[in-house]
Amino acid sequence: MPDTHPIPSAAQAAQSLADQSLAERRQALATRFQKARARTAELVATLSPEDLMVQTVPDGAPAKWHLAHTSWLFEVAVLIPFNPGYRPADSVFLDLFAASGNGGPPPPRMLSRPTAAEIMRHRDQINAAVLHLIDGIDDALWNPTESALMMTIAHERRHQERLLLHIKHALWSNPLRPAYEQPPDHPHLGAPPDGWLEQSGGLVEVGRSEPLPGFDHESPRHRVWLEPYRLAARPVTCGDFLAFIEAGGYRDRSLWLSDGWEIARAEEWSAPLYWERGASGSGNDWQVFTLYGMQPLAPDEPVCHVSWYEADAYARWLGKRLPREAEWEVVAAGCGSMGNLLGTGHRHPRAGTCHGTGPWQMCGDVWEWTGDAFTTYPGYRRPHGGDKGVPDEAVNGRLASNRMVLRGGSCLTPFDHAGPWTRHYLRPESRLSMSGFRLAEDA
Amino acid sequence: MPDTHPIPSAAQAAQSLADQSLAERRQALATRFQKARARTAELVATLSPEDLMVQTVPDGAPAKWHLAHTSWLFEVAVLIPFNPGYRPADSVFLDLFAASGNGGPPPPRMLSRPTAAEIMRHRDQINAAVLHLIDGIDDALWNPTESALMMTIAHERRHQERLLLHIKHALWSNPLRPAYEQPPDHPHLGAPPDGWLEQSGGLVEVGRSEPLPGFDHESPRHRVWLEPYRLAARPVTCGDFLAFIEAGGYRDRSLWLSDGWEIARAEEWSAPLYWERGASGSGNDWQVFTLYGMQPLAPDEPVCHVSWYEADAYARWLGKRLPREAEWEVVAAGCGSMGNLLGTGHRHPRAGTCHGTGPWQMCGDVWEWTGDAFTTYPGYRRPHGGDKGVPDEAVNGRLASNRMVLRGGSCLTPFDHAGPWTRHYLRPESRLSMSGFRLAEDA
Amino acid sequence: MPDTHPIPSAAQAAQSLADQSLAERRQALATRFQKARARTAELVATLSPEDLMVQTVPDGAPAKWHLAHTSWLFEVAVLIPFNPGYRPADSVFLDLFAASGNGGPPPPRMLSRPTAAEIMRHRDQINAAVLHLIDGIDDALWNPTESALMMTIAHERRHQERLLLHIKHALWSNPLRPAYEQPPDHPHLGAPPDGWLEQSGGLVEVGRSEPLPGFDHESPRHRVWLEPYRLAARPVTCGDFLAFIEAGGYRDRSLWLSDGWEIARAEEWSAPLYWERGASGSGNDWQVFTLYGMQPLAPDEPVCHVSWYEADAYARWLGKRLPREAEWEVVAAGCGSMGNLLGTGHRHPRAGTCHGTGPWQMCGDVWEWTGDAFTTYPGYRRPHGGDKGVPDEAVNGRLASNRMVLRGGSCLTPFDHAGPWTRHYLRPESRLSMSGFRLAEDA
Amino acid sequence: MPDTHPIPSAAQAAQSLADQSLAERRQALATRFQKARARTAELVATLSPEDLMVQTVPDGAPAKWHLAHTSWLFEVAVLIPFNPGYRPADSVFLDLFAASGNGGPPPPRMLSRPTAAEIMRHRDQINAAVLHLIDGIDDALWNPTESALMMTIAHERRHQERLLLHIKHALWSNPLRPAYEQPPDHPHLGAPPDGWLEQSGGLVEVGRSEPLPGFDHESPRHRVWLEPYRLAARPVTCGDFLAFIEAGGYRDRSLWLSDGWEIARAEEWSAPLYWERGASGSGNDWQVFTLYGMQPLAPDEPVCHVSWYEADAYARWLGKRLPREAEWEVVAAGCGSMGNLLGTGHRHPRAGTCHGTGPWQMCGDVWEWTGDAFTTYPGYRRPHGGDKGVPDEAVNGRLASNRMVLRGGSCLTPFDHAGPWTRHYLRPESRLSMSGFRLAEDA
Repeated sequence: MPDTHPIPSAAQAAQSLADQSLAERRQALATRFQKARARTAELVATLSPEDLMVQTVPDGAPAKWHLAHTSWLFEVAVLIPFNPGYRPADSVFLDLFAASGNGGPPPPRMLSRPTAAEIMRHRDQINAAVLHLIDGIDDALWNPTESALMMTIAHERRHQERLLLHIKHALWSNPLRPAYEQPPDHPHLGAPPDGWLEQSGGLVEVGRSEPLPGFDHESPRHRVWLEPYRLAARPVTCGDFLAFIEAGGYRDRSLWLSDGWEIARAEEWSAPLYWERGASGSGNDWQVFTLYGMQPLAPDEPVCHVSWYEADAYARWLGKRLPREAEWEVVAAGCGSMGNLLGTGHRHPRAGTCHGTGPWQMCGDVWEWTGDAFTTYPGYRRPHGGDKGVPDEAVNGRLASNRMVLRGGSCLTPFDHAGPWTRHYLRPESRLSMSGFRLAEDA
Repeated sequence: MPDTHPIPSAAQAAQSLADQSLAERRQALATRFQKARARTAELVATLSPEDLMVQTVPDGAPAKWHLAHTSWLFEVAVLIPFNPGYRPADSVFLDLFAASGNGGPPPPRMLSRPTAAEIMRHRDQINAAVLHLIDGIDDALWNPTESALMMTIAHERRHQERLLLHIKHALWSNPLRPAYEQPPDHPHLGAPPDGWLEQSGGLVEVGRSEPLPGFDHESPRHRVWLEPYRLAARPVTCGDFLAFIEAGGYRDRSLWLSDGWEIARAEEWSAPLYWERGASGSGNDWQVFTLYGMQPLAPDEPVCHVSWYEADAYARWLGKRLPREAEWEVVAAGCGSMGNLLGTGHRHPRAGTCHGTGPWQMCGDVWEWTGDAFTTYPGYRRPHGGDKGVPDEAVNGRLASNRMVLRGGSCLTPFDHAGPWTRHYLRPESRLSMSGFRLAEDA
Repeated sequence: MPDTHPIPSAAQAAQSLADQSLAERRQALATRFQKARARTAELVATLSPEDLMVQTVPDGAPAKWHLAHTSWLFEVAVLIPFNPGYRPADSVFLDLFAASGNGGPPPPRMLSRPTAAEIMRHRDQINAAVLHLIDGIDDALWNPTESALMMTIAHERRHQERLLLHIKHALWSNPLRPAYEQPPDHPHLGAPPDGWLEQSGGLVEVGRSEPLPGFDHESPRHRVWLEPYRLAARPVTCGDFLAFIEAGGYRDRSLWLSDGWEIARAEEWSAPLYWERGASGSGNDWQVFTLYGMQPLAPDEPVCHVSWYEADAYARWLGKRLPREAEWEVVAAGCGSMGNLLGTGHRHPRAGTCHGTGPWQMCGDVWEWTGDAFTTYPGYRRPHGGDKGVPDEAVNGRLASNRMVLRGGSCLTPFDHAGPWTRHYLRPESRLSMSGFRLAEDA
Repeated sequence: MPDTHPIPSAAQAAQSLADQSLAERRQALATRFQKARARTAELVATLSPEDLMVQTVPDGAPAKWHLAHTSWLFEVAVLIPFNPGYRPADSVFLDLFAASGNGGPPPPRMLSRPTAAEIMRHRDQINAAVLHLIDGIDDALWNPTESALMMTIAHERRHQERLLLHIKHALWSNPLRPAYEQPPDHPHLGAPPDGWLEQSGGLVEVGRSEPLPGFDHESPRHRVWLEPYRLAARPVTCGDFLAFIEAGGYRDRSLWLSDGWEIARAEEWSAPLYWERGASGSGNDWQVFTLYGMQPLAPDEPVCHVSWYEADAYARWLGKRLPREAEWEVVAAGCGSMGNLLGTGHRHPRAGTCHGTGPWQMCGDVWEWTGDAFTTYPGYRRPHGGDKGVPDEAVNGRLASNRMVLRGGSCLTPFDHAGPWTRHYLRPESRLSMSGFRLAEDA
């Protein structure tokens, strides 16, 4: 079920919207909204009501919650503020599916009621109300409405990736290890050749010039000094990483940062998340849990579901390092042909590990850890005053501590959210995302 | 949906079985088995697959688990040992739904797969296999087979009460507070008059002479010395208990045992479980969550969902005490007409609180806390060597520490499990069961 | 440093006090007070200020705290209520060393200030004030003053045992395993012969007729029915218990109660507390930590520092059981010569394990677990209304849940606190006290 | 007790050592060693043995442990490797006082034995052995020995600051709030005028060219691009910070990072650590616990004991930001007269808050949080292979995750450890250190 009709990237959309007549913009926004909503519904089509309510990641959520929470944001950030006559379809949804973060324990998320059917019905009501609003909003109010909708659509799309990550973990946690879907019938083309991309560094410019709604942390554009460096031409593969395991990398404290060593011992890490040896009667072979169920380890796919600590330890083992995010961005943005690359990749979008069939792209296979802690860029200002009621998703800058930057986007990331300027950030111990990495070194 | 066709009590069943021909016994056992299994299925008929998988009590279980776990015991304790050619329908069920207690963390119980439909299908397979076994077992093996089946049927029936307790808690934990079923259209007859039953005590005999399968802790019969005493003619009512609350009983440390005071403070108890003031727009009135949803407090129903500590504190407040279990049993067994009482009670079997329409019976309304810690009776021996593989339900004596005895049985208890000799035991802080109490004092 | 000049037992004291003139009673009480206070000070004479402030038992206390807390009770329960002109020597001590239990977290107990020297100086001030009060109290107020002092002296003496238990644990927790004192130069006489004491049971009377101050839970006297039984002539020895260990008793779930099995697994019990194999270069031999430091296991001493669960499992292993407390008391009280026995025992009062040199006495070697949960006796009433401000030590009945009864008293128990009527109670998982047990069986 | 005879800074020492003859270097190193050791002993001179063993910071240590642990490193990193005939004075010290971090729970640190006296005696033995080694080491082995000693001396000096932080917290945790020492009789000169230092930025060089032993994370020197900026002329004062408190800064979520808000709520922060309102009968005034005991809040002293989250929220409140560490270093290093400033400051080295009597220096008053997460510098290599046995103190790069950079050094920092290149790093929630901050903004 590949994502064959990509909607235009958010940056492209922003630009083209600006050039259009208001009527065209209404139409474009309605289409964008509908595609995003339909995509979410499509993602849960194979799941039973019982699957939809499982939560196994402590701070994660059941798929059903994602379905309702994304509707919630359309109500509180679009329908209520911009449609004075709007009556919430069911006030229960306003209370039950709010974002947490305002103190107090978060409301329980694993609920049998409302049922999945009720939540899907509520989604339909919200969809109708939003389309009605897009169609009828007064010209004078168009701009803020459009901006709020762009942000909430981005929010919906971002939750698509989380939904898949959470459902993957939930299925893996079930002793039966059921598959999310059947594997596709693609030919497997192998990894591209290894190698290094030589870069001269110097004073470079990075970051987006204009912030996208919901992506405040990717701006403003600013200057950074880089010494000459080399960047690996491809991410580290499962085969590469297996060599690290077999060389005792998980047992050699000298390779690890202290915090990483501590958590690796406490949680008994000996391989990436979802790797298992000897499962399913496979003898001593490594198997990996994917959205297609348990699969044999594919040595030439990029390794993923590793924490930043594992990536860092692997790099130290080889005397290399992780790239700085500016180093990564300069290469990714300089490819020029990013659009092409994105268009030609035959990705397996829901595989546990992904691979491209042509030259690997930097964006859209696996998230790639960088060596940088997540801070906001020089000159950053919080949008919306960063105020109460605004969900954290709309003010990424609030999360700028204890997290490391990832770049590129994974095969579960909506296409237009994965590009050279995209910044993701996770706690360094996180392994839930499809997080891999590539190496760098000083020239 | 009252339980209008009670199957014969276990004691009656045991006796009458002994008098019958083997063919009649086969028939009687098959009927008993089918009724128990059908009753469990009936209990979940109104619940959705999503409801069936919710677990909100930490050491409780989802309804779905109860459905599968009871089948599991028929497989491991009956089909596998007594049917040499038996092939487990699906070995997954043997692993997933085993009793815990053999060390290691218990397996997760809140599972989306197997689905509810798969579990019901598996129940049907087990049902067919057990009926086939009853029909075809060799005469020489009849007695142990019958004994194992009596125990596993008792196990199934006992889980019916737990299933209802767990689903009640799960529904209450849902912010929507959905009802399990609609309230019946019974007239409400009020509480019987209060008063004291004078008892002379002396050397009395208590306990069952013959242990029932699955109820090892109710035997052997033995002698106990009692001083003269009085037993309250009815359990403490909600109205009685409300007076304790209003008199500040929850804030007066001098009324409480130290352990009780500590947990009452830590968990901020200020009323029985499921009591709420000012819920549902009811102003300042007390409401109680029941299987019929939120209902106004009924002052003349017996109080229930109180811990032993609350019962003990209430009794101390009035200068009374809880009865010893022998004191309680002597009165209950002496009624003589217990069968009649059980037959005439028009109970509301799934209400949050229950009441009878005639003189209140001692058995079958609410479990009644006694002043005794649970220990096995003098002369007790563990059945089956108390060995591995035997579930705790089959060796109640294993649990004889840190628990207090309750007597009588609640309106959720299967009829033939509620009688003058029935002993239940719970941790003194437990409030999940329909546990009430009646007062006693020295004559 | 044996306790060679025992003060008269509390019961004897109470009786003889009643027969004396007031002047004699003043003198006797002053002596009793001084001996108790001096004994506490003597117990810490070998410890450094650093030792005195260590706390290793979570709900225990440093020796320094015991020294100050016992003074605290003399202030709040005697000096302040009975001496209107009394000015607390230092109000800091009133706050810092109060009993806990009135809600809120207990104040920290491991304090460097006040220093040990300051606390000893404060004890002297309290001593002088109490002696002054005894000397000068008005005749009309004598009785309540005497009663309050008897209770607070009992409190001081009870803390002597706890102080030794806590310091023993603290020294054992230190990697150097320092000894509290040097072992005495006693001959070791071995265990008395094993055997059974036949008892006819019937309707017996147990309990004290008159409560002693501070021992409310040992009254009133009441009747109990006992079937014929046998009681072991001696407690289980270390050698006996070693056989249980070597037979795999700690690994056989069928011998254990469920709660016991769970805690034994969670805390990895494989022998009594303080037993270690292969410590101190002793090869594979068992060593036991005692107040004399690490010592080789003495097979004919009574086993101690076992939980009730271990005692219960040992008894089940041999097909025996623990005695009921009435069974134990009937034998102990019936010896008649208890006083003599107490007088002639040459005990090693601070050994890790103790033994008598003549026939083992039932009182004063090790506390002996019984099969009974701790409940208050029929007819029990709380003293003092059980009110706030009264420490738990003065209202033992407050603790009547989740605890099992022990009888007899250990070699660390003050002499006059150990007798046939003495009831101690501990949580069944507790191993801190010198708790052993003897077997019983039905005749 | 000001530190009036500063030993030469480590950088100066390294340089001058290189110019000296070997005999002179032996002499200089012996002096340096003796001064460091004597200073540690001096710091505990006013504390009792009981004070020395208190630990109140969960991952902190008692003063006694610091005294022994610093000796431990001289044994394992100097005496044993460089003195083949060396026999450890007492092998117990090698086990008990090792650095943690090699897996397994750390050994307990709050020990009554060895006593303080024994630990001081052991320090003397180590001192003699080290001086003997310095005097007698073969010329050929001089360089590695000197390097190891420089590192272990730095380790000792660094523990001096921790010892004071831990003892401060321990004294504050005592309900009596005892002072560590009496306040000095200095005149109080007030804060310097506020203002901004204009900086042009550009391509700057930062970092030490040569790593100092034990300070690997301060090298290598490297280039960074800075936009024009302004740096505050003085740190934020207590008076400044009080205005933030009074404006509701601790209750306004929009000012905080998400992680910071969560911990501030969970730990109920409403002021910096050690600030208390209404303590000691001071009415509603703010008091601050210092090494001189409780003192009235001094509005013109720099605020300290704030977490990075509080500093960040304060800056956001004023629309400013924290400086980048390169921004800070450029100004500090450019003062030129840093040596002078350090020489003329009349600091109160053990006050809870410190102030200078002349123009405030950037180094040696309070540690100053920067906006940068701690990462190793470009081109960094771990010393010693970062191997086992090497304490974390010798490989700072191991700790480069989840920590923020502080600059400057506090009045508790040894003089030669505080300079423009000094980098400290702490978790952003840490408030134990004397951590303050100054503001910055884009020009």
